[in-house]
Amino acid sequence: MRQSYLTEPLVMLATVLQWLALATLAGALVGTGCSAFLRILFATSDHIYAAPLWVQMAVLPIGGLANGLLLQYGKRLNRTGLKDSVIIAVNDQHGALPWKTLWVKPVATLITLGCGGSAGKEGPCSHLGGSIASGLGELLGLNSELRRRMVACGVSAGFAAVFGTPIAGALYGVEMLAIGRIRHNFLFPAIVASVTSYEVSRFWGVPYPRIDVSFVGDFTELLFLKTVAIGILCGAVAWVFIELLHGSRRLFTRLRDRLHIPEPLMPAIGGVVLAGLILVIPYDYMGLSLPLMDRALQGEPMPYLGFLWKALLVAVTLGSGFYGGLITEQFVMGAVVGGAFAHLLALQPALGAAVGLVAVVAAASNTPIAAILMGVELLGGDSTLYVAGACIAAYLIVGHRSVYPEQQIAATKS
Amino acid sequence: MRQSYLTEPLVMLATVLQWLALATLAGALVGTGCSAFLRILFATSDHIYAAPLWVQMAVLPIGGLANGLLLQYGKRLNRTGLKDSVIIAVNDQHGALPWKTLWVKPVATLITLGCGGSAGKEGPCSHLGGSIASGLGELLGLNSELRRRMVACGVSAGFAAVFGTPIAGALYGVEMLAIGRIRHNFLFPAIVASVTSYEVSRFWGVPYPRIDVSFVGDFTELLFLKTVAIGILCGAVAWVFIELLHGSRRLFTRLRDRLHIPEPLMPAIGGVVLAGLILVIPYDYMGLSLPLMDRALQGEPMPYLGFLWKALLVAVTLGSGFYGGLITEQFVMGAVVGGAFAHLLALQPALGAAVGLVAVVAAASNTPIAAILMGVELLGGDSTLYVAGACIAAYLIVGHRSVYPEQQIAATKS
Repeated sequence: MRQSYLTEPLVMLATVLQWLALATLAGALVGTGCSAFLRILFATSDHIYAAPLWVQMAVLPIGGLANGLLLQYGKRLNRTGLKDSVIIAVNDQHGALPWKTLWVKPVATLITLGCGGSAGKEGPCSHLGGSIASGLGELLGLNSELRRRMVACGVSAGFAAVFGTPIAGALYGVEMLAIGRIRHNFLFPAIVASVTSYEVSRFWGVPYPRIDVSFVGDFTELLFLKTVAIGILCGAVAWVFIELLHGSRRLFTRLRDRLHIPEPLMPAIGGVVLAGLILVIPYDYMGLSLPLMDRALQGEPMPYLGFLWKALLVAVTLGSGFYGGLITEQFVMGAVVGGAFAHLLALQPALGAAVGLVAVVAAASNTPIAAILMGVELLGGDSTLYVAGACIAAYLIVGHRSVYPEQQIAATKS
Repeated sequence: MRQSYLTEPLVMLATVLQWLALATLAGALVGTGCSAFLRILFATSDHIYAAPLWVQMAVLPIGGLANGLLLQYGKRLNRTGLKDSVIIAVNDQHGALPWKTLWVKPVATLITLGCGGSAGKEGPCSHLGGSIASGLGELLGLNSELRRRMVACGVSAGFAAVFGTPIAGALYGVEMLAIGRIRHNFLFPAIVASVTSYEVSRFWGVPYPRIDVSFVGDFTELLFLKTVAIGILCGAVAWVFIELLHGSRRLFTRLRDRLHIPEPLMPAIGGVVLAGLILVIPYDYMGLSLPLMDRALQGEPMPYLGFLWKALLVAVTLGSGFYGGLITEQFVMGAVVGGAFAHLLALQPALGAAVGLVAVVAAASNTPIAAILMGVELLGGDSTLYVAGACIAAYLIVGHRSVYPEQQIAATKS
């Protein structure tokens, strides 16, 4: 430690200034890209529910086919041999991502959500973020270690833009790269890029509604145990969701292999299944389901098994090969299940929904610390005591499974 | 992953319930122990400043001698061969700590702060916490892995009781064990123990004043860059503090070796030096200096080099062999330096002080995420955007040094 007495602070200062420049630039570009995507998304999604039921049913398989053809085209377009996954890019591809296919996942998501498929909106943002930052890193001739960090900070910036939670977004982008580890050396780039991306997105007019749930009142040990109980429940919900999602993927793959169905047709078949399901499942569970989430957060009564409808629709949508994000639905399921079960624990439903909202994310994405900070940024600082126990309990209960199959296990949980 | 399909959630549920029981018990005991210590401390510290100057000067060497004799006696009392450090206990001693000497560090701290030495109050609390939890683990016959986790959760519970910030305390206890790593499998025990310890301490009447700094107003990219600048400054302050502290330790050790001075006499010599220093240095910098910190947080003007007075007094106090905590002074230095330099960046002094408060801790203790959560719990959720960039920048600038020399480097920063 001695020899670095005077040089180390200068090296660290250079690191800080370097990443201030690189991550601010990346954050500004990612924020602009995500803002464009989000504004198109807000203009196109959730309109289909105004149409007659037969139109909704007809549009789903068509959207599926469009998704299948688009993703197939994207695969052909990518001749780099690189996998199109940000987690793999950071962990195994030295921060390299295919550039040409940048637009494929965002457009596929617009189609999925525009035609009523059930999924999230953050997948394409984190993907856009990672790809833009990776491209910027290549353009600037960064070495592979710096480029990996660029991708991670781009991903964080994407999450910050889509959630409107810069610090939680930054942590999510760093924590989701592996189970049970936070790379402290990724944190500064991630936070700089996320804050910049968030500010730029606000500048471009992306709205970020704050959730208004009251956490005032005397926090007690009993209340803490109740939030841990909500966390255990949310961990179980995340477990069901992940198993359903991966089970559905396996099922559709087996079906394809057995019947030799061309891959682009699979989401169309998924669309047919979804068209059947919307005859039974209330339409609130389709698309992003944000109005449903808002109702849960306002304390309206929620059905005990509502989360299962959402999990099922997402499993069929994404399992059959539609592309879409993986997090909005975790928010929705968490809010629904927290709101439904709260009164059994003598908790206010809105409070249960708010705790559930972040606890399912902590579990399904294996990102407990990002989830706690999400609570801080979405629900206010007074929520910290309420969400912390729930998030870590949920994170434990779900075990070593994840919505991201490519997530590596850096540290076991038990 | 497949074979654990159904058994894993049950194993994880058992883990959650096991730690709910163990950590709640540990947290309740640690909270009670720390409350007793804190109430005695509040009754005895900071009274010396009402006495005439010559009394203050006379008491310092006497307190030093008492400290030296007590710590020497503690060393003789400990025949286990175990080091009396919680970080070493977790990393190298399978969670074992000497039990008989439990009271030595708290009593030494009471003497240090009672006679006007400059130090913190959390060292004995984390030590009490780790020791109580380690003893409980031994009593319950836990294996070494569980016992290590017990010590960590006891340390977290100690921090939660002394800071009044349960979630930040939990994270601090986990993050301070090594540089650049958070052990996710330590988080649940830490949070359960910390929340319990905090609730128990409130029950025993320990006061936790909330800091009232306004963070409302439109956050901008420019404001973010300014907070990063405060962070860089705080990193440099942490660097100066750590170098002064370790330099003073080396100097007193060399003096002892050269002149063959018996070890218990060293703090008495330190006391003589301190008695000389208080002729020059304003008395606000002695003891815990909490009134000074409060004034900085209220936006009162602070001297640019005020932090240096504090760093110097702490370096002499702890470097000569007084025992005391290492964190309160980080708060104080951060608030003083943040308040002093804020106006150069056209920031409100109170805001600069609040950001500095947590940023120096992020750097000197290498605990950036705990520091961000400390911001949330001490300053409110609106501070998150203001403190995050500052904390990580400070954490980088300080390099791979630490106030805890036994802290291992788990991941490099650059």
